[in-house]
Amino acid sequence: MNIKVGKQAIVEATEKLKNWGRWGKDDQIGTLNHVTPEDIAKAARLIRTGKVFALGIPLDSNGPQTGLFGGRFNPIHQMLATGTDAIAGRQDWNKIRYADDTLNLCVQGATHWDALGHIFYEDKAYNGYDAKLIDAKGLNVLGIEHSKNKMVGRGVLLDIARFRDVDWLKDGEGISNDELDRCAKDQKVEIGRGDFVIIRSTDTWGVEVRPNETTEANQPWHWVVIPAMGLCMGEIFYLKDLAQDCADDGIYEFLFCGPPLIITGGTGSPINPQAIK
Amino acid sequence: MNIKVGKQAIVEATEKLKNWGRWGKDDQIGTLNHVTPEDIAKAARLIRTGKVFALGIPLDSNGPQTGLFGGRFNPIHQMLATGTDAIAGRQDWNKIRYADDTLNLCVQGATHWDALGHIFYEDKAYNGYDAKLIDAKGLNVLGIEHSKNKMVGRGVLLDIARFRDVDWLKDGEGISNDELDRCAKDQKVEIGRGDFVIIRSTDTWGVEVRPNETTEANQPWHWVVIPAMGLCMGEIFYLKDLAQDCADDGIYEFLFCGPPLIITGGTGSPINPQAIK
Amino acid sequence: MNIKVGKQAIVEATEKLKNWGRWGKDDQIGTLNHVTPEDIAKAARLIRTGKVFALGIPLDSNGPQTGLFGGRFNPIHQMLATGTDAIAGRQDWNKIRYADDTLNLCVQGATHWDALGHIFYEDKAYNGYDAKLIDAKGLNVLGIEHSKNKMVGRGVLLDIARFRDVDWLKDGEGISNDELDRCAKDQKVEIGRGDFVIIRSTDTWGVEVRPNETTEANQPWHWVVIPAMGLCMGEIFYLKDLAQDCADDGIYEFLFCGPPLIITGGTGSPINPQAIK
Amino acid sequence: MNIKVGKQAIVEATEKLKNWGRWGKDDQIGTLNHVTPEDIAKAARLIRTGKVFALGIPLDSNGPQTGLFGGRFNPIHQMLATGTDAIAGRQDWNKIRYADDTLNLCVQGATHWDALGHIFYEDKAYNGYDAKLIDAKGLNVLGIEHSKNKMVGRGVLLDIARFRDVDWLKDGEGISNDELDRCAKDQKVEIGRGDFVIIRSTDTWGVEVRPNETTEANQPWHWVVIPAMGLCMGEIFYLKDLAQDCADDGIYEFLFCGPPLIITGGTGSPINPQAIK
Repeated sequence: MNIKVGKQAIVEATEKLKNWGRWGKDDQIGTLNHVTPEDIAKAARLIRTGKVFALGIPLDSNGPQTGLFGGRFNPIHQMLATGTDAIAGRQDWNKIRYADDTLNLCVQGATHWDALGHIFYEDKAYNGYDAKLIDAKGLNVLGIEHSKNKMVGRGVLLDIARFRDVDWLKDGEGISNDELDRCAKDQKVEIGRGDFVIIRSTDTWGVEVRPNETTEANQPWHWVVIPAMGLCMGEIFYLKDLAQDCADDGIYEFLFCGPPLIITGGTGSPINPQAIK
Repeated sequence: MNIKVGKQAIVEATEKLKNWGRWGKDDQIGTLNHVTPEDIAKAARLIRTGKVFALGIPLDSNGPQTGLFGGRFNPIHQMLATGTDAIAGRQDWNKIRYADDTLNLCVQGATHWDALGHIFYEDKAYNGYDAKLIDAKGLNVLGIEHSKNKMVGRGVLLDIARFRDVDWLKDGEGISNDELDRCAKDQKVEIGRGDFVIIRSTDTWGVEVRPNETTEANQPWHWVVIPAMGLCMGEIFYLKDLAQDCADDGIYEFLFCGPPLIITGGTGSPINPQAIK
Repeated sequence: MNIKVGKQAIVEATEKLKNWGRWGKDDQIGTLNHVTPEDIAKAARLIRTGKVFALGIPLDSNGPQTGLFGGRFNPIHQMLATGTDAIAGRQDWNKIRYADDTLNLCVQGATHWDALGHIFYEDKAYNGYDAKLIDAKGLNVLGIEHSKNKMVGRGVLLDIARFRDVDWLKDGEGISNDELDRCAKDQKVEIGRGDFVIIRSTDTWGVEVRPNETTEANQPWHWVVIPAMGLCMGEIFYLKDLAQDCADDGIYEFLFCGPPLIITGGTGSPINPQAIK
Repeated sequence: MNIKVGKQAIVEATEKLKNWGRWGKDDQIGTLNHVTPEDIAKAARLIRTGKVFALGIPLDSNGPQTGLFGGRFNPIHQMLATGTDAIAGRQDWNKIRYADDTLNLCVQGATHWDALGHIFYEDKAYNGYDAKLIDAKGLNVLGIEHSKNKMVGRGVLLDIARFRDVDWLKDGEGISNDELDRCAKDQKVEIGRGDFVIIRSTDTWGVEVRPNETTEANQPWHWVVIPAMGLCMGEIFYLKDLAQDCADDGIYEFLFCGPPLIITGGTGSPINPQAIK
């Protein structure tokens, strides 16, 4: 299959792949409906050694945001109480010596989930919800809170960079479905319905070919995957250590547990997903 | 054992229980060192049905903060881009229609971990680190980032409220070690080293008797547990659904997975821990 | 004139008073166009004693916001560097000892100007600008930045509370134009075009009768004054000291200088206006 | 006088110039005590034409902060309510259509005052206050709120760039007292006690020679001026239009009105000072 990425391909893919109504008109979680308790119980048996890999990147001022996209900024971490205050005796009236802090961050500024209300197709969000339901107060539908206990299941790593024997993919290089299949076969792992599939490229910003393969749409994969399919994407995962371990033992499957914060009306959530082998 | 809670008891407990140096002078994670890969692999076998319980509370303006403690405030969720902008055509120059947002929150304002640098004993933090290492730039030691892949293991719920046959404990009611043991026995569950033990009271603010049993110290349990023992506490867990399920099937153990965000130098992290049965 | 406040009165007042196009189709400042350099030069002569009155209220966590209106919160002031850090030697690598801080506030949360883009009438802002020009990126028209050097002129205090011989107006009490005229006469002061007229009620939240005199519209005065007339309002002024001084010397006019911060695309600005007598 | 800038010069200047106790042991405003009501009344007479110059720079994401100094960031302006929401009917339940917003900024990130508690000399702030009084809660002494009605008086512009016939001073070029005197003489203006003197260089970041003339101290001028003298500095003023006007009419004096926001415990305040001629 050879697709010329662009507006027409988006329209066709949308029509072909869209899941609106598939899980009822009130559905808020899309393809996460595919993950069953049985899948989770089965995935638990993939834990053999008890090794845990943290897939988040640090939340601090050295994050990936440059201010170019939509006013996003790197996390701002500020203290409300400090050890220096404590030793200067400034807290003793309170009979406790402590440190405390705040964090101000863009929900999608580092390792994160996209909620299904993050992207629209024309005037609609996933499942046909009117985009106007997503206003300055937040997401009245399709917010990340609906997935609060849904981000657990079988995880599979497809290490495309290793499959190609490169450190990372170059700008502009895409990945075809066919290559994903060949990589899985090479890794001796099968992808099933309800799996959390993690692609190592190794720069996962936006889970898109960058620069995009068309100028007709920005982030064309998002256009199809989120509003049409209702597939929840994770971005900016840290995969180096996990990938090394998988290469070492030849096992590319694990229990995946990536709980979102329960941000009411959030377009997503910062996360630190865990791969447990 | 009958302890009169107060300064002297804190001093004695500190001397008796302190783990400074136990895991080396550079240790940053305290009792989390007790959790071994073997423990995790074993805990995975506790997953039988694949039910997942989210233990976080929602992050929004209806949170538990009243502004009384240390300037803490409830989460502030603000939009950077909206569906109403999208349908008004305000984003079309960018060739993508989307919603985006920010979250400004107190790290310890809702369901969260306390990092080991959160509380000091006199001029010291856990393991003897000088409290001055925790300044307006954040925690140069003992920050939550050190636990990024350490919050996975066997979880055990001790449902004290149910054990007492009450909806919740009254103000001022404490829980003794002895009662914890009796509750565990009643629940036919054993506590082992390295377990994540969750106590249902059912108001877990601060994991302390409130009001405190002494006026000599504020949050006396914190004084001992964090800087002396190096035991990482979680607070403000939502336990209702999990507790009901445990009461229903009589099984009070599960795989616990509560990854912190990797907040560099954070006094803790907002979390949405998962109990997987 | 006896107006029954409500939707119809708003429509009639809008038609009667609206200034759209009066100062050109690109106008951004409305009735501030009335203030001429000559007015300012003349107002300067009102300064006789050199007394300066600050009309702002403090910006801190004790501000007037309760969270009820539109997610507004009180100012959050946080430190980036402290004296306690300085004396603990934590800054000496930088060869300067200092304190630094941040402020996160609602633009209209304390003493402030309303910019003309703050309120809409149906789908339009002042001067006929489409409301859609005011999106999640801010005010592309009618932002407060256009008034950066326009908030200087003759100030006149009308002390209605004193005129009625009360400490403050009760809930639900309005002020008629006629009463304003009588108060001015009583105070032996005349109101001219281009004056900054300050009404002491003495609780100026919203410059409206509270509760509003109708349930057909919220803040009906705003509906007419901002989008129709293009009159810039100031709210939550601290008037006690100024009013006392005016009562003492019988002089109710002064140079008014209330510069807004130049917040690009702001719906207004926090301010600390000065009355100079 | 030829001073070699460095630690020793700072010590000597501190001893020579320090004003501790000069206005009483509880003084909070230092040299602002020099400004008398008579000075203000006299300065008012400098207003001749009624021209008003705004000396602030815009507060937005294009500000001067690069993140290099102390975690400072550019202003973050976010909407709480928008015109796009209004026209989508999302606000009509509330019977008002409006826009609203927040601003999160570094107090000293753009045009601003330094409060006297901003800089320490060893363990002390101005007037001998212990630096520990300035902690994570803010400035318990010497905060900007003490100057809420003190930033009004005679303003004088010394246009050094024009005096040197350059567009701006080069990196590393200093300005001597002698040159200031000669510039004033050339401009036919005299400096008096209590004047607000504005130096046009024309890049006023930090009011210091940049790079500093010594490596022994960072921002050596700050070390002397703030904690020793108690002189309140303004930084990052926009002077182009004012300077042009002064060059045109040959008049370099005006009424200066630069009210700070009343930030309780603030190290300073963002401002938009007004020069009124």
